[in-house]
Formats: sequence, C-alpha cells, structure tokens
Amino acid sequence: MPDERFVYLGDTARVPYGSKPLEMVRAFASEIAEELVARGAKAIVIACNTASAASLPELAARLPVPTWGVVQPGVDAAIDAVTPAYRGRVAVLGTEATIKARAYQDRLEAAGVATWSRACPLFVPIVEEGVSDSAIAELVARHYLGDMPAVDAVILGCTHYPLLKPTLSRVLGPEVVLIDSSEAVADVVSADLARLGLCSPARRTAGADDVTYLVTGDVGSFMNTVTRLGGTDAPAERVDLGTARAPKSSPALEPLPRSEHLAS
Amino acid sequence: MPDERFVYLGDTARVPYGSKPLEMVRAFASEIAEELVARGAKAIVIACNTASAASLPELAARLPVPTWGVVQPGVDAAIDAVTPAYRGRVAVLGTEATIKARAYQDRLEAAGVATWSRACPLFVPIVEEGVSDSAIAELVARHYLGDMPAVDAVILGCTHYPLLKPTLSRVLGPEVVLIDSSEAVADVVSADLARLGLCSPARRTAGADDVTYLVTGDVGSFMNTVTRLGGTDAPAERVDLGTARAPKSSPALEPLPRSEHLAS
Repeated sequence: MPDERFVYLGDTARVPYGSKPLEMVRAFASEIAEELVARGAKAIVIACNTASAASLPELAARLPVPTWGVVQPGVDAAIDAVTPAYRGRVAVLGTEATIKARAYQDRLEAAGVATWSRACPLFVPIVEEGVSDSAIAELVARHYLGDMPAVDAVILGCTHYPLLKPTLSRVLGPEVVLIDSSEAVADVVSADLARLGLCSPARRTAGADDVTYLVTGDVGSFMNTVTRLGGTDAPAERVDLGTARAPKSSPALEPLPRSEHLAS
Repeated sequence: MPDERFVYLGDTARVPYGSKPLEMVRAFASEIAEELVARGAKAIVIACNTASAASLPELAARLPVPTWGVVQPGVDAAIDAVTPAYRGRVAVLGTEATIKARAYQDRLEAAGVATWSRACPLFVPIVEEGVSDSAIAELVARHYLGDMPAVDAVILGCTHYPLLKPTLSRVLGPEVVLIDSSEAVADVVSADLARLGLCSPARRTAGADDVTYLVTGDVGSFMNTVTRLGGTDAPAERVDLGTARAPKSSPALEPLPRSEHLAS
C-alpha cells in the first residue's frame, strides 16, 4: 500500500504482552487504539497476535474505524494449506497468552481442522537477541517441537516468529508450510480499504512521513533492536500512553527522619 | 533469620526491568518501597540487581527505614575472591540495565580490580522456562562468554542467574568463583539489623505468616513459575500498585457510530 501513510505504535515499555493476564492486555490495546484514533487513523491493524487474540472482537465493535487483527488471516491461510487427505492437522505456535486465548485453535477446529499447539516463550527473546538463525535457535526449536505430530502447516502465531523461518524449516523439513500472517493481513486490509472506499489517492513519490514510529519505552533501545533486525533507520519518538507513563514519585516518599542512614 | 517475618513483593506485571529505561525502573522501585513501608516494613532489601543498580543511593537516602541493595555485598564478595597475583580480574554478568548502570564495574574498578562485563538478556527467560541446566543453557552461556578473558570470579549480577550455576561451572571451569550475592546480602542484613537493635524476639515455631507473597501480575502464572523453580507452594496475593494497576477503559472508547462493521 505505497500510497498510504502509517503510524506504528510499539508499546515497548510494557512488552512482553505474552505472559500478562488477558484483561491487562485488553486494557493496553484499548489505550493504544485510543491514541491512534486521536491521531487521525482511518483504520487500525492490531499487529500483535497476543493483543489480537485477547481483544479483537471487543475492539472492533467499539472503535469508530475499521479494525483488523492478525488471527483470522492466519487461520484462513492455514486452512488453504491443509490437505485433509494428507495429514489434516495444523500446528499453532505462539506466546503463552495467545495459546491460552485459543483464538487460533477454536477457529481452526470450528472449520474441521485438527490442531496441535505449543507456547514458545523463548522464541521472542531469541529473535530480539539477534540469534534467530543460529544453533541456539535450532536447539530451542527442537525443545519445543520435538513431540509435534505430523502437520501440514505451522502458524507462526507471533509477529516475531517469521524471523525464525530458516531455523524452523531446517527443524520441520521443507514439506511443512510456515504461515506468516503478516502477508495475509496486508492482503486483507488492502482489499477491505478498497471495498470501503478508504484508499488514499495515488502519490507520486514516497515521502519521509510514510511511517511515523512511536514507542512508549526507550527510543535508543528500540532503534538498536530495529537495526539488529535489519529494519529502518527512520527515527522514532517517545509517546506517553496511559499507564506506560513513567510514574511520578509519591509525596509519601519524601525524606523522613530516621535514626541511622545505611547506604550499603 | 528464622525469627523475622517477610513481605515479598514481585512486580510481575512490569517485569522484565532489565531492558527498561533507568528512570522508569527508579519510579517502579519507589512505588514498591512505598507499598512496603505502608505495610509496616522495618527494613527493605531491593532484591533485584537492576533496581539496586538504578535506584539504591536515592532510595536509601529517602526511605524512613534501613534499605539495602544487592550490589555492594556482591562487590565485596568478589573483591575477597580476587587474587591479584593470579588474574586480578572479575567478570560481571547482568541485564542490559545493570551492565549499563555500571554499579558493579565502577565499584570494583574504584577498588583497583579490573573488570569485564557482558549483558546476557537470554539468561532470565531461560531460567523462567525451567531449562537452566540444559544443553540450551550451555550453548547460550558459550555464546555470551566465548570471548571472556581469564578471571578469578564471575558476579552473577541478576537474581535469576544463580540457577545457572551448574551450567556456568561446566562452561567456565571449576577454578572460577561464582559470586551469588543473595547469600552475601543476607549476611549483611542480619549483621546490620543486630547492630541497629532491630532484630525480632526469638519465636518458638515457624508460622504460616513467615512470608507474605504479593505480586502485581497474574497470581497463577507466578505460582507456576515458583513451582517450576522448586520454590514454595505458599499462596500469593495480587497487589494493585501504581501504574501496574490494570487501567480502566477510557470513555473515549465507547462505541461510536460507523458506516461498516468489520470483524475479520
């Protein structure tokens, strides 16, 4: 969608979402959506599997703009990849919260597809450490997938996991289809925007404002991670968002008299 | 200290601290200390290297009760372990924030001890995944420590790292002393409480209220982790703390009229 402008908001101060209670993830997703609506977004993609699995139906019903998650496009792509006469089973990999929310599993099973699922908490830190294509990543993949039954497709149910594709292909063999829902969701959003008459007019040249990067945490750490993952060097800005604001110290913590002062 | 009662507060909703900006870690540590003072704590141990490195001098100066961090006891133990005629160097392992804060390195170098340091972001998730004594852990340790020069001692500068001792001993060899500051800090606290006349009277039997466990995040996830690490099965309670409270949804996000309803 080269004619569109994008606002990316990364809640880097409060990640990882994958091990947080679902109601907390839902509340964070609401705050982020509110910020994006306030900045004039005409449509929103919840580009996080944990947040999509936890909050999509509720957010889509409440927001004043079209809203997509990444789960259903991944489910649809997986159903396309299943060959019932062959194995008829899809594996779902994701964070603890995504696997526990059962958003993928329930939709696949409702479509008659058998599932096997596993939470893979070490995959995100491995990708963020920049060792996604390494002996470490391969050993961790074998740790999680050693008892996986034969499947037709594996849903990479977390936005970090596509960086593990080369490793997962080595471990699982070339005949297993790896489903990257980022491509599937882009296709769906593009088609829906056209259908809704929401596409921007064609622009002649790409501009410096094509993507605005906002983060709730440290800008320098974010830029380091993006660079390590081979991404853009466009600058990011800090955004103060709900409870991701650094809290002020409480007046209750002003110095009080004390008998002795230890600073070991 | 079997005669003392303890309140443990784990900020599980906002961990990991290790990759957060120092000013945010300082603010979280202040909120936690305030909660503990409000619950009647007579003394506080900042039992986290990242929070100690980020906030100890400031908190110790402001709190009305004696306050210790885990850094100085670890430094002292490392200085004891150094044999200048031999190698004269100490390695410091910790989170990104701890290594960046330089609390260990500056104190050791001020004492004339050469240092080598490395941030090891994968160590915490490996411990929390319960694979701290495994081929995965060993491969990750070799990844971080492959270019470490000869040292006399290695400071395990994160409260998770002592669980990696068997793995680190295999990788580093038995002649390198592994410094676990948890034991050092217990010795210091016990001695200082006695010196300050703050010890509790002897109790005849251990009670069920010896330790109160408070967490800001999901209680069930916390209990699962503690059980996996071989810890207590005493119940934990949820505590709402500053910005770790799950935010309420904003009124701005009430349903608004829209032309079309997408729930893909």
